[in-house]
Amino acid sequence: MKIYGDIQSGNCYKIKLLAALLDLNHEWVDIDILNNETQSPGFLSKNPNGKIPLLELDDGRCLWESNAILNYLAQDSELLPADPFLEAKIQQWQFFEQYSHEPYIAVARFINKYLGMPEHRRNEFESKQEGGHKALKVMEQQLLKSPFLVGDQLTTADLSLFGYTHVAHEGGFDLSLYPGIQNWIEHIHALPGFVSMQADS
Amino acid sequence: MKIYGDIQSGNCYKIKLLAALLDLNHEWVDIDILNNETQSPGFLSKNPNGKIPLLELDDGRCLWESNAILNYLAQDSELLPADPFLEAKIQQWQFFEQYSHEPYIAVARFINKYLGMPEHRRNEFESKQEGGHKALKVMEQQLLKSPFLVGDQLTTADLSLFGYTHVAHEGGFDLSLYPGIQNWIEHIHALPGFVSMQADS
Repeated sequence: MKIYGDIQSGNCYKIKLLAALLDLNHEWVDIDILNNETQSPGFLSKNPNGKIPLLELDDGRCLWESNAILNYLAQDSELLPADPFLEAKIQQWQFFEQYSHEPYIAVARFINKYLGMPEHRRNEFESKQEGGHKALKVMEQQLLKSPFLVGDQLTTADLSLFGYTHVAHEGGFDLSLYPGIQNWIEHIHALPGFVSMQADS
Repeated sequence: MKIYGDIQSGNCYKIKLLAALLDLNHEWVDIDILNNETQSPGFLSKNPNGKIPLLELDDGRCLWESNAILNYLAQDSELLPADPFLEAKIQQWQFFEQYSHEPYIAVARFINKYLGMPEHRRNEFESKQEGGHKALKVMEQQLLKSPFLVGDQLTTADLSLFGYTHVAHEGGFDLSLYPGIQNWIEHIHALPGFVSMQADS
């Protein structure tokens, strides 16, 4: 199978990290978003929404959306418990990530780290801080109660949230305010097979 | 079980529609967002993210995020096929809905229908049109190829996207541009057990 992505994108890094932890055999295809490579006719035929990451199976079937790819690749592994309520809680955190976390933390990071905080986007950057901290507080509440987001066990929900949370400081978020999140980040860093976001840069 | 929601919210209506189609026994608890009822200590103890819909099981366990609730309630029904790739495609469309569809179409609708298009939010309303049409085009491509989003069968992916798509005109989107989507809407309207969004208003 092929995974199309950019390792500096938290949404793509999630998949890279899962593949490393589960030792999944795959070909990584680097895609340059800033060079519009997701808008080529060839890429759009695989994902009409023009976004990475993208999973292409050996038979040509394609799957997009980072969290759907994570859950698909984790099937039958210990990262995806079979209990229906636990599976639902994993999805709950993943939808939270895409709606209430990523649009604040990842966008603030993008403006600061990749665009170099241009003056005309400073207001937008500032407007992302409140929502980002709100999302971090919701995570913190859970991570003070349980070592991982869904109980005592690492699941794909943790990988989903780890993607942008562990680099939230690059978006201006001070993680020292959140000891539960900091412990959780250290725990994930220490996992056998862990790869860092910067590994391929 | 209890479902906390506001029937005029597409995210809540999704659950109402699923419960009607599957004839699920439940208590519906009306929540008034504009009156801040999602921010009370009691509500926040059930969903720290302070959003509806919210599912509370009889044993007190709570689940939030509309699409996670849909998939949980649809388990073992024909709305959620057991094939892992089909299940992943359902999730793909649901994550697409929360990231690439809802933030444009639902927000434009909210500004127009609920706020009455105040002048100071007109620019924001206009800024949502391009992204909304992009999302509708992605759906249209699929719905010209298959009667439902994931193959020949109604799944929770269709209910997720139906929530805000069928009222997209209230956000200024002309659905006559999308015959595939229009057919799909008619198909869902004709399902046995269908309830409309306006049923409780």
